[in-house]
Amino acid sequence: MKLSYEPPAVITQVEGVECSGLRVKGGGLGIVRCSGSVAGVFTTNTFKAAPVIVTEEHLKDGHIEGIIANSGNANAYTGTQGIKNAETMAEILAEKLGCEAKDVAVASTGVIGVQLDMGWIEEMFGKVYPELGGEEENSWKFAKAITTTDSFTKQWGLKIGDAVVAGVAKGAGMIAPKMATMLAFVFTDAKVEEMDSILKKAVSKTFNSLVVDGDTSTNDMVLLISTGKKRCDSGRVEKAVTHVCSTLAEMIAADGEGATKLMRVFVKGAKSVEDAEKAARAVASSILVKTALFGCDANWGRIVAAVGYSGAEVGELSLEVVGKKWNAWESFGRSEIEGNFDVEANKARVKLLERGKDTGKRSEARKLMRENEVVEFHIDLGMGSESYCVVGCDLSYDYVKLNSEYTT
Amino acid sequence: MKLSYEPPAVITQVEGVECSGLRVKGGGLGIVRCSGSVAGVFTTNTFKAAPVIVTEEHLKDGHIEGIIANSGNANAYTGTQGIKNAETMAEILAEKLGCEAKDVAVASTGVIGVQLDMGWIEEMFGKVYPELGGEEENSWKFAKAITTTDSFTKQWGLKIGDAVVAGVAKGAGMIAPKMATMLAFVFTDAKVEEMDSILKKAVSKTFNSLVVDGDTSTNDMVLLISTGKKRCDSGRVEKAVTHVCSTLAEMIAADGEGATKLMRVFVKGAKSVEDAEKAARAVASSILVKTALFGCDANWGRIVAAVGYSGAEVGELSLEVVGKKWNAWESFGRSEIEGNFDVEANKARVKLLERGKDTGKRSEARKLMRENEVVEFHIDLGMGSESYCVVGCDLSYDYVKLNSEYTT
Repeated sequence: MKLSYEPPAVITQVEGVECSGLRVKGGGLGIVRCSGSVAGVFTTNTFKAAPVIVTEEHLKDGHIEGIIANSGNANAYTGTQGIKNAETMAEILAEKLGCEAKDVAVASTGVIGVQLDMGWIEEMFGKVYPELGGEEENSWKFAKAITTTDSFTKQWGLKIGDAVVAGVAKGAGMIAPKMATMLAFVFTDAKVEEMDSILKKAVSKTFNSLVVDGDTSTNDMVLLISTGKKRCDSGRVEKAVTHVCSTLAEMIAADGEGATKLMRVFVKGAKSVEDAEKAARAVASSILVKTALFGCDANWGRIVAAVGYSGAEVGELSLEVVGKKWNAWESFGRSEIEGNFDVEANKARVKLLERGKDTGKRSEARKLMRENEVVEFHIDLGMGSESYCVVGCDLSYDYVKLNSEYTT
Repeated sequence: MKLSYEPPAVITQVEGVECSGLRVKGGGLGIVRCSGSVAGVFTTNTFKAAPVIVTEEHLKDGHIEGIIANSGNANAYTGTQGIKNAETMAEILAEKLGCEAKDVAVASTGVIGVQLDMGWIEEMFGKVYPELGGEEENSWKFAKAITTTDSFTKQWGLKIGDAVVAGVAKGAGMIAPKMATMLAFVFTDAKVEEMDSILKKAVSKTFNSLVVDGDTSTNDMVLLISTGKKRCDSGRVEKAVTHVCSTLAEMIAADGEGATKLMRVFVKGAKSVEDAEKAARAVASSILVKTALFGCDANWGRIVAAVGYSGAEVGELSLEVVGKKWNAWESFGRSEIEGNFDVEANKARVKLLERGKDTGKRSEARKLMRENEVVEFHIDLGMGSESYCVVGCDLSYDYVKLNSEYTT
């Protein structure tokens, strides 16, 4: 599902950020020059890919000079040779930037268990490095370079006063609770204190609420980089970082492999946040719910069944289906950024269950689901006042097609 | 994926069991007359369907006279009217059998949230009851009557000395850890003490090791019925009940909606049984692993990633792929029943990972996967000596097709 959008700002508008990239058949290579401070959040998978291990180590001192990222090969489960290759990637860029390898972040996504072709990496680097620059075009080239099965490039940003917060991301399948095969790099020229806590909070509210196919990958990485050139209120920066992460996360959900619908599951009326999260994740992860969404089948029985096995305490369920057009500003329904936009536009809603009773409006809901690209399930557990939101997508024939023949 | 098999015994060979059934477009109705003792295991879903609530209550005294089961409508999330309808189903059969309604078990599977058409139930009953009998044909009619999206009827049994243990099951999609939209009725004429413990142990080793799509339904039910006509060693009965459950469970896995391959995931070398179970369930549930299996893609990276996020403690992984023809006697690889059969026949094996190292045999494994209907992943976590096995299937285009348009 391709989303069309125009970002109010792109990463090359962040003062001190230059980049470039090239995507060819089979993979891509992107590089960024960005001298500043950095924070990172990395995959929780036991088998961390070599670039994740190397980058976590490199960024310990909180300083960064550049990023080198390839797509097509994840450099995961590749042993000590994999670690060496990730280090070599850092060295190649460090040499040109005139910094130490430990100031370079390395990222990879793609097939697991195959050694990188370092000749190819060097050849690509030779083409990409001379193109490094600060034009808008450069930002799109970098965003494109890091894609794998993505059907569109993902970039979002905004201006807050003088400063800019902007990011790029890649990701399509294998997006799970607790991140997945996704990369995101968020840049700002605002001077930021407490980079770590801002990023952790933003990721927990955004990328960690994604459910595409339930698998947590070996290569996930989100970096926040501040070049520190501008002064800006820290509360506004924090909101902007969360908003950018949130919009990028929704782009990833919408681009779930083969997805035709973006799904948001809002659970409210829960006894605890944990209960709300359990129920929301169970519904968004259920492949029966996901296939029903693909078929625009308002089969609320599957939603009830998923809530029922989630482990959440439940009373009399109410369920409403809401359909709308995608609006980047509304990502996760909780953007709190200043802005003049109407998120209530073009919204349709049908109540399917009212305190445990079928309202008999299945066919109206079907129509709503057919006509809208974003479908929201609003579920009231009838037990309390806590809530949680998870974002996902439907499961289509094309998901199976893309994933049954990936390595061949 | 249709399995062809010839059961060594069928339920009507159990002394004291008579049955009948009719499957028409949209649903079916089956009935059994079976005076004896009974034990049951029921779904753990919070929203138990009306027939589950009613049957749990009816069978509390451990006595049964008959079973009435319909397919097409789950009678789930149907409120007090649903409970009344389930009770009425029990009464209809009880009246004919000359027993109390509380001695009748009621089971339903199908669409959730729609009231049963009781006129249809009575009309079907009028056709089915007069056909009640003890011929082999009757057992197949009952097995057929309870199917929904099943692509074949499921019946398996065996003789142990004079006695018979035989069962029927239905189930295709929505098969999960902790049971799912599946019904199984296992009968024996052997006199059995400790019905409950035998059934619980058998279910935990067999139906609860199934993973088809990860959803736990509102309607699952497994009953064990003993007519008590014969004497038989209780150890042999217990083994036979486990074997019958195990074979029926594999039939359900093989018949996963749209499935083309049966998958067994054996995890060994784990520090604890819990770790082995976590890893096995993560691999068998991963829709990336399931789609790769459908494409016969020996993409071991996805297996490694799933083990990595399972939460199990892991060392250097070894992974072997084994391919074979399906053999009912070998279900779950742990049948301990007396019998003259060679489970090692027609087996092919390819090692993909040896203590963390890629063996480079991906294309050999691909060939093996293409040529065999049963594919086993043998995973050694390299940490200890505990093991666990989970049974599942692949995920194909047809799964999506069947589940995106189910209620229409």
